[in-house]
Amino acid sequence: MSGKLFGVGLGPGDPELMTLKAHRLITSAKVVAYPAPDSGTSFARSIADGLIGNEAREIPIIVPMRVDRFPAKEIYDKASADIAEVLESGLDVVTLCEGDPFFFGSFMYLFERLADRFEVEIVPGVTSLTTCAAQLGRPLTSRNDVLTIIPGPLPDNEIRRKVEEAQAVAIMKVGRHLARLKALLSEMGLLDRAGYVERASLPEQKVHRLVDLEAETAPYFSMILIYKGDEAWTLPPSFSS
Amino acid sequence: MSGKLFGVGLGPGDPELMTLKAHRLITSAKVVAYPAPDSGTSFARSIADGLIGNEAREIPIIVPMRVDRFPAKEIYDKASADIAEVLESGLDVVTLCEGDPFFFGSFMYLFERLADRFEVEIVPGVTSLTTCAAQLGRPLTSRNDVLTIIPGPLPDNEIRRKVEEAQAVAIMKVGRHLARLKALLSEMGLLDRAGYVERASLPEQKVHRLVDLEAETAPYFSMILIYKGDEAWTLPPSFSS
Repeated sequence: MSGKLFGVGLGPGDPELMTLKAHRLITSAKVVAYPAPDSGTSFARSIADGLIGNEAREIPIIVPMRVDRFPAKEIYDKASADIAEVLESGLDVVTLCEGDPFFFGSFMYLFERLADRFEVEIVPGVTSLTTCAAQLGRPLTSRNDVLTIIPGPLPDNEIRRKVEEAQAVAIMKVGRHLARLKALLSEMGLLDRAGYVERASLPEQKVHRLVDLEAETAPYFSMILIYKGDEAWTLPPSFSS
Repeated sequence: MSGKLFGVGLGPGDPELMTLKAHRLITSAKVVAYPAPDSGTSFARSIADGLIGNEAREIPIIVPMRVDRFPAKEIYDKASADIAEVLESGLDVVTLCEGDPFFFGSFMYLFERLADRFEVEIVPGVTSLTTCAAQLGRPLTSRNDVLTIIPGPLPDNEIRRKVEEAQAVAIMKVGRHLARLKALLSEMGLLDRAGYVERASLPEQKVHRLVDLEAETAPYFSMILIYKGDEAWTLPPSFSS
């Protein structure tokens, strides 16, 4: 009998924001897979650091971090073949996923290659979306608000239309698009309605009103949240640093 | 010195989908607050059942469940006053929140009344949004998809416009709007692109293709996810029951 493939959400980065289920599955896993850069440490693995058993087999999925284009077909073909071999041997594979496996995650590239042949279980995780809202000290949505989640790499005109339509907006994957997005939101008169968070829940986290942010580029793990109420938004007193 | 107010996300319902941090805060809490119906058990409290200490003081916030209209100003005014009194006495208050405190949650009604006077910490939780995607066995979003989250109570024309604009759509709070939403999505030719989940992650969970669902009403905790790809969507083999 084949093993089962787990896609396990680790949450946004603070190991304490992992679920009890993720914790249980990782600590008891015999085989663990995770995305890793071609140099440096794997963010996913670092969240689970100390939980992976010494005897566990590790399958790093090396994804070059300097390109912006996905999917890297060959990488996921190869990783899926490696994982399939383990599953066929009867062992389960626990795949570590930053945030939530099905929320803008790369686990989908394994899922689409393996779900027709193997049993798969997805363990949802805390997303960066609600973690950033928590850090900004303002509810993401309330009552009957429409919330739109927009990837930052989309072109200005598309982002503009989506932002105009929504009550609450999250722009993900800000990264090198920061300056362009700031200019666009400034043009739209929304700069003082926006909050910025990078590396939410990690020790190096940064939280700013977007209007105060001087940087022109941001790390990949950064987000802008926009609240289109009547009033300019400020960090609550207990959150300002 | 005043105590600190915690808004603690419990996740979607399965106690194992609680974060380690929520677990720690609840087990060590001296005062716990939570929403509760005027008759029957509190869903939030039931998720944390067994973790709340015998000595802990409990503050149930009784919210009538038969009305659809919020906020019930008097209820939250009173609850905030009760909680403020505890905080002023120097004790922390851990507020149990279904899902995530800042994602369509009622914690915001306490937050807006107390955040200017007391230190507040939000502990994000796993949302029903990604839990439903996990149960349907299909990524919520990928690559540069725009995801729009729409409350079911909105009028048809608004929902139609939002659904037309997005690549991926979640309709929350389906409840008594189910029949209307099914008719709308059928008209839009999207019925076979939609999945339905109620009570995600609980033992009584139900997962269906929307096109197969015969019920005309749904519980409040139910969701429709729509994937606007080219192909009709089916539950993956490992997920069909």
